[in-house]
Amino acid sequence: MTGQRSDARRNYAHILTVAEAEVAARGAQASLERIARTAGVGSATVRRHFPTRKALLEAVFRERIHVLCEHAETLCGEKDTYSALVRWLHELLAYSLAARGLADTISYQPLQDEDLEHSCATDLKDAGDRLLRRAIADNAVQAGVSIEDLLTLVVGIALATENYTAPARQAERAFRLAVMGLHANGHRAVSD
Amino acid sequence: MTGQRSDARRNYAHILTVAEAEVAARGAQASLERIARTAGVGSATVRRHFPTRKALLEAVFRERIHVLCEHAETLCGEKDTYSALVRWLHELLAYSLAARGLADTISYQPLQDEDLEHSCATDLKDAGDRLLRRAIADNAVQAGVSIEDLLTLVVGIALATENYTAPARQAERAFRLAVMGLHANGHRAVSD
Repeated sequence: MTGQRSDARRNYAHILTVAEAEVAARGAQASLERIARTAGVGSATVRRHFPTRKALLEAVFRERIHVLCEHAETLCGEKDTYSALVRWLHELLAYSLAARGLADTISYQPLQDEDLEHSCATDLKDAGDRLLRRAIADNAVQAGVSIEDLLTLVVGIALATENYTAPARQAERAFRLAVMGLHANGHRAVSD
Repeated sequence: MTGQRSDARRNYAHILTVAEAEVAARGAQASLERIARTAGVGSATVRRHFPTRKALLEAVFRERIHVLCEHAETLCGEKDTYSALVRWLHELLAYSLAARGLADTISYQPLQDEDLEHSCATDLKDAGDRLLRRAIADNAVQAGVSIEDLLTLVVGIALATENYTAPARQAERAFRLAVMGLHANGHRAVSD
């Protein structure tokens, strides 16, 4: 029994290593068939460990998402709630630019869905939400903003610059604009 | 000679029809091999007509991009330069949400590149740039904003909500936030 379990663990670890390489090379579109072939197992085995593409991507990025969650916790101790939030969002952007497929992983899930299984993306959302709620309580951020809104913008910037030869520069510009808003002199409603 | 040319035209039109269906079903990741197979031609023929994925996507979305360019021209006649720009960006978002693969097509190209061939994405960028420059000349939009920044945000919002079950609602929220900015009371720099 123990032997079977440790075989299964080795099997899982091996498939995950192959998946990491495949996602690094091809991003979120990594082929599950190719992962199975390279790992020397059947597609059914891959699907047993990772029933959906989202599950596979979450496993690949679990570590990085965990670091981002921990950093959010630390930033919750900072006095300037606005700049703590913006710094965390900026870090999320940097991670998304550095690791192909991470942005897709975060975007994968309609975050407000009734997703009962434990999910890394949910942890990330909860961590960012704590920073956001502090900033709203401080009157530093508009009350109607949700963490999904912020993740949509940050993740979107990473996805939209993926085909750029030097994504970071354009992503930085768009990030600043998203934080500052378009209008030259203070706020103006979209429907103005 | 004429017969050969009209054969080639029919061939092109047929491949394009197949490509449109394939892109509608699978978005920007549409398989060129599958397009060739469905069209009953070799991959080499598809590649001769569409040497890159970007070329294929541009052909598929040429019509829609053209309509967006024309609408930008019309809006250039409006007095309120700010709301003309925001309305056009909002229309671009709506088109991107409605047609799978359009957002990728626009994001495909590092727009500032020395792209010598004529490109739909360049037309779109130029059309939006005229609206943006009017709004900047009016002091309605910050002087440093570029059309690439705006396209990055709009296209990014469409890409980041692609996996949502109802993308439009979340995309609208993120669009408003991008236009208005994060801060509750007027502008504040990212590094504050």
